[in-house]
Amino acid sequence: MPTPDGSSPALSIAMTPVTTDADHGLGTVGIFGTGDFGRTLGLRLLQAGYQVVFGSRKPQRSSLLPQGAQVLGHAEAAGVAQVIFLAVHRDNYDFLVPLADRLAGKVLVDVSNNLRRNQYPEPNAHYLSKLVPEASVVKAFNTVSAWSLQSGGLDANRQVLVCGDSTESKQRVVDVARSLGFTALDKGSLLAAGEIEDYPLQLFPMWRLPAAVAVGLTASLFAYCLLMDVIYSWVTSKKDMSFRIMVSLANKVFPMVSLMMLSLCYLPGILAGFLQLYNGTKYKRFPDWLDRWMLCRKQMGLLALAFGFLHVLYIMIVPIRYYVRYKVVSWTISQMKENQSEFDNTVAWYTDSYMSLGVLGFGLFILLGITSLPSVSNAMNWREFRFVQSKLGHLTLLLCTSHTILYGWKRFLRAQTYRWHLPPAYMVALVLPCVVLGLKLLLVTPCVDRILMRIRQGWERKPRPAGASDRTGANGKEPLML
Amino acid sequence: MPTPDGSSPALSIAMTPVTTDADHGLGTVGIFGTGDFGRTLGLRLLQAGYQVVFGSRKPQRSSLLPQGAQVLGHAEAAGVAQVIFLAVHRDNYDFLVPLADRLAGKVLVDVSNNLRRNQYPEPNAHYLSKLVPEASVVKAFNTVSAWSLQSGGLDANRQVLVCGDSTESKQRVVDVARSLGFTALDKGSLLAAGEIEDYPLQLFPMWRLPAAVAVGLTASLFAYCLLMDVIYSWVTSKKDMSFRIMVSLANKVFPMVSLMMLSLCYLPGILAGFLQLYNGTKYKRFPDWLDRWMLCRKQMGLLALAFGFLHVLYIMIVPIRYYVRYKVVSWTISQMKENQSEFDNTVAWYTDSYMSLGVLGFGLFILLGITSLPSVSNAMNWREFRFVQSKLGHLTLLLCTSHTILYGWKRFLRAQTYRWHLPPAYMVALVLPCVVLGLKLLLVTPCVDRILMRIRQGWERKPRPAGASDRTGANGKEPLML
Amino acid sequence: MPTPDGSSPALSIAMTPVTTDADHGLGTVGIFGTGDFGRTLGLRLLQAGYQVVFGSRKPQRSSLLPQGAQVLGHAEAAGVAQVIFLAVHRDNYDFLVPLADRLAGKVLVDVSNNLRRNQYPEPNAHYLSKLVPEASVVKAFNTVSAWSLQSGGLDANRQVLVCGDSTESKQRVVDVARSLGFTALDKGSLLAAGEIEDYPLQLFPMWRLPAAVAVGLTASLFAYCLLMDVIYSWVTSKKDMSFRIMVSLANKVFPMVSLMMLSLCYLPGILAGFLQLYNGTKYKRFPDWLDRWMLCRKQMGLLALAFGFLHVLYIMIVPIRYYVRYKVVSWTISQMKENQSEFDNTVAWYTDSYMSLGVLGFGLFILLGITSLPSVSNAMNWREFRFVQSKLGHLTLLLCTSHTILYGWKRFLRAQTYRWHLPPAYMVALVLPCVVLGLKLLLVTPCVDRILMRIRQGWERKPRPAGASDRTGANGKEPLML
Repeated sequence: MPTPDGSSPALSIAMTPVTTDADHGLGTVGIFGTGDFGRTLGLRLLQAGYQVVFGSRKPQRSSLLPQGAQVLGHAEAAGVAQVIFLAVHRDNYDFLVPLADRLAGKVLVDVSNNLRRNQYPEPNAHYLSKLVPEASVVKAFNTVSAWSLQSGGLDANRQVLVCGDSTESKQRVVDVARSLGFTALDKGSLLAAGEIEDYPLQLFPMWRLPAAVAVGLTASLFAYCLLMDVIYSWVTSKKDMSFRIMVSLANKVFPMVSLMMLSLCYLPGILAGFLQLYNGTKYKRFPDWLDRWMLCRKQMGLLALAFGFLHVLYIMIVPIRYYVRYKVVSWTISQMKENQSEFDNTVAWYTDSYMSLGVLGFGLFILLGITSLPSVSNAMNWREFRFVQSKLGHLTLLLCTSHTILYGWKRFLRAQTYRWHLPPAYMVALVLPCVVLGLKLLLVTPCVDRILMRIRQGWERKPRPAGASDRTGANGKEPLML
Repeated sequence: MPTPDGSSPALSIAMTPVTTDADHGLGTVGIFGTGDFGRTLGLRLLQAGYQVVFGSRKPQRSSLLPQGAQVLGHAEAAGVAQVIFLAVHRDNYDFLVPLADRLAGKVLVDVSNNLRRNQYPEPNAHYLSKLVPEASVVKAFNTVSAWSLQSGGLDANRQVLVCGDSTESKQRVVDVARSLGFTALDKGSLLAAGEIEDYPLQLFPMWRLPAAVAVGLTASLFAYCLLMDVIYSWVTSKKDMSFRIMVSLANKVFPMVSLMMLSLCYLPGILAGFLQLYNGTKYKRFPDWLDRWMLCRKQMGLLALAFGFLHVLYIMIVPIRYYVRYKVVSWTISQMKENQSEFDNTVAWYTDSYMSLGVLGFGLFILLGITSLPSVSNAMNWREFRFVQSKLGHLTLLLCTSHTILYGWKRFLRAQTYRWHLPPAYMVALVLPCVVLGLKLLLVTPCVDRILMRIRQGWERKPRPAGASDRTGANGKEPLML
Repeated sequence: MPTPDGSSPALSIAMTPVTTDADHGLGTVGIFGTGDFGRTLGLRLLQAGYQVVFGSRKPQRSSLLPQGAQVLGHAEAAGVAQVIFLAVHRDNYDFLVPLADRLAGKVLVDVSNNLRRNQYPEPNAHYLSKLVPEASVVKAFNTVSAWSLQSGGLDANRQVLVCGDSTESKQRVVDVARSLGFTALDKGSLLAAGEIEDYPLQLFPMWRLPAAVAVGLTASLFAYCLLMDVIYSWVTSKKDMSFRIMVSLANKVFPMVSLMMLSLCYLPGILAGFLQLYNGTKYKRFPDWLDRWMLCRKQMGLLALAFGFLHVLYIMIVPIRYYVRYKVVSWTISQMKENQSEFDNTVAWYTDSYMSLGVLGFGLFILLGITSLPSVSNAMNWREFRFVQSKLGHLTLLLCTSHTILYGWKRFLRAQTYRWHLPPAYMVALVLPCVVLGLKLLLVTPCVDRILMRIRQGWERKPRPAGASDRTGANGKEPLML
């Protein structure tokens, strides 16, 4: 065990006596490890009014360490601080073993992060807890980067996730976090350490599949529309319509992607229903691909909303486009020359209906988006959430699909829309939502709905081979208590 | 007390020895009750890595129970598990009484729900706590349905509300919730059990009155506009204007409903002020209808915003409507024939002002909506909240009312707007906001405001008959400390 | 110590016996102080089902106190209640000293507020805790006004901030808060008392600087545009264009302010980078003005979004303006007379691109705004937050700047745009974003980026004079553990 050399008092510039936590004064915090995180943490703790003592193998004053901090040997540092941050690599944790008796009863804060998931067989905090069982291990601050620590967490997430088996130890760490300008979120006992350690490694994991689907759909529909709207004109009549790429094409592709993504958001739930009907039980696991799909429905829906929002913006700027103004002038002049044609009531009905459906669909869509905000969905109970996301969600899909169908109204009869014998893009986009709505319609027919409801309440159609046990309560009529 | 029959080891497929909670290993969880919830919970616990033991009256292996779970008698199950979920009906809780000594010190999780509020004289968890006083009762998981449990809480609210008198017991349940993919919200001691049990029964209780008002207003204003715009044309000049229903009428009704709902959001606060002035005290309760009205002001305002948002969307699509384009062409042609009329500076001023007021009003309205989000309003203190919701709220009402008044500018002088001697709809819609703004103006005049402020600080105009007690500090000048 | 006079039982109208907290029954709560807050709190507690006993120096029944409450001497009241609210001024706290033995083990709730920050040398709750060290002091309810308390917290923030050293005491106060309709937020130990006491005093402190900048920019750009668009016309050609103020000018000023505010949101981070490069270390503090600027970046960006949103609304109403319709008719007529000019593909490309960039920029901007909502940003880890706010943020700035540059396309070559030899406003607005983007481009060049990255990981270019200590691991190659 290292002993402090004679110069150690001189190392401390602040020269304040080292004390243990006094009543409501900010006490002494220990930091083992003088790397970037340790130094930055020390600096911030000093600024917040704590006394800081670094524990080091060679307790020599380094100019890198923040002014005002003491440097002692590990054992001495452990002696004066009640809360000790461990800012060293997990691989070096074993230096703590000989210090075990000095660390008994101390709060040991594990701030370590790993490079990838499952790098070690067990979470670092569990390993630490086994190494020094007498200390009270708290996992915290690993979700905070040295950079964000330095700026007081002010340019980013200010949340420090904390877990540990001792409520009292956690409270001490929460106090430290709070005094540095962070808010603390208690994640429960040390069992949560693995989860907390994995947290900073992820980059929108649930958004990857939906984002890939969105990019794929956008690219292929864009190519299809480019072929139909720009290349066709060029090939058949040498007309350069390439300017349509910027707004017209975007305004065709975005709503189509939005509608298809919205369908893809509701399709897995419907497939799950049919699978449960087919299996005759809800206790069988879904295939993996369906599980993964169901997990990212929310993200699917939010991306659909983003594309729908862009569609709305594009629609709004239509009347101020140069191209549109040019066409309107041309049209006005032609109307003038051949006397204005009669006002067509049917066309007025159909165009207004199509727009009105779009407006109402988008309004509901925005509502779905708002209820997806964490703070809003947390304020709803399960029944309310189901009402909004399932009932109103399918209504949104119905409105948006009707909007698209009405948009194509009568157009599907005109031959010139089938360029190169290909259907126009909006028809392609309608296949998926129509299938989803059709299947949903099947599921909500009273007879199917009743069976599905019973399955979801635990009923099973075919009793599994039960071996020796005589089953009580077959046919779902089992008593709630055996 | 039932003893396990010889076959019971054979029931467990996993064949792992039953142990109590080891250090940081996921231990054994008991489940009493083998109904749908119990089975689904057991399956999920097994998947999460727990060992699961079902407690049953007849400890026989049922094929319905998830593979890997043990089935024991109640007493045996209580012996091996530290945390026991009680997935049986409240009516059957009394089977626990003979097990009381086995349950001493155990965490007993009450997951029960009722069919309606006040079904029983006391919350189920309190009843359970009286039946087995030696056990530590925790209320949790009742806000989670079996369906949402099965899907890991992933398609809905992931929050598990927890309450209980022992912090340690709650932490154990929180750990279980977390390992099943839920987040836990600590609601305090077991006193909160009644509230938690009522929670899943509600379906937007605060939204009912505002929604009813909105539907009523929309229906009656729609009927009025239908009469004025469509039926009048048909009756007087046989002109079919029915196509106006889809967009024109919607775009008339929605802003009117929005403005009236916004007024109804601020009216109760003003009425409360006048009532306090009249009573001369703030310690008298408001009548019930006013209390109920004040409770749903936020929902009133949010519905007003929704209608306002639809109005904005409808306004934006005006220029791309077939009807509007037809009218513009007609107008252009007529202007051409009779030489374009002079540009009218006053009309430009008036129309631009009217639109600008609308834009600014809607912008402020959106701001009010954003500050109503739970996470945003929680980040504000009372002073800030008052500033936004009261000051900016009344400013929004003022802007939107001015917008509507300017919209009607000079129109109210034209005789043809009074069809069948009825005022146009926008005038009807203006009555309420003008009344609200007028009353508010009265309240904020310095002399009234000063009295109201004193009342709200506790001053009382008429001392109530005080009996024998000699009052110190009459006229509100009482010292803060007696 | 005052003794209750003989009439004291008669004071209680409810006549229920005073008991201590029974099992799960709502017990007796004491309130010291009969001012507005104390009385309102008493009324609400009675309504919620608590028994309330006021502690008073002169224990006489006052008609001001809510019916059903008891009034006793301080010592007697302290005897019957386990939780005691202290609703008196801090200056009068010393009356508690002689009661210290009666208050031992009681939960003493400090609800006091100050008139300004740092009014007293220490937080009121700490002072109280020193006066009565045997009591368990909990700071709570100070963020709740008497008015909001009376209305059950229903028209405002329902959060009660709680801190205290005893978990058990806090839970009791949390229970009271919950039963009055509030939610409680545990802020940790009594160390947080100062922060909680300062909380109700602030009025959007972080928004002041950004708001001042926004007002300043809006006013000066408005004046500039007024000069260029309205006064110039009037002076040079006596044309009254004053109607342009309402929409045209607003729609010029708002996007410019938005773009400049967005640049100002990203400029401090870039300046900080250059400062770190210049200093060669990240351990040197930034100058105060830069620190303050960095602290309000989020608010800067949100104000930019608000102005951008208004710009979008103004753009959307362009085609329905009287002025625009008049111009369109004039243009149509002139096109008709001199035969419609050829459709210009380049103009179509350029106008569509400019609009499309604006739409995409605004879409990304909205995304940035959504991720700034507390509940959304709390759900992201630091890596995700950095990705959205830094990567997508700079992309937004790039899109919006390009949008503005394309808007001015070729216009900067035309002489008539330089009225009175002054550049048009959009050019003025472009200076700042172009500078910001240029500097950012410098920072992300590989060679500069590599150095900056090393500095941010703790490397220092110039070792500071280190005195006697021999530094291990100079040049940033120090081992993570000394």
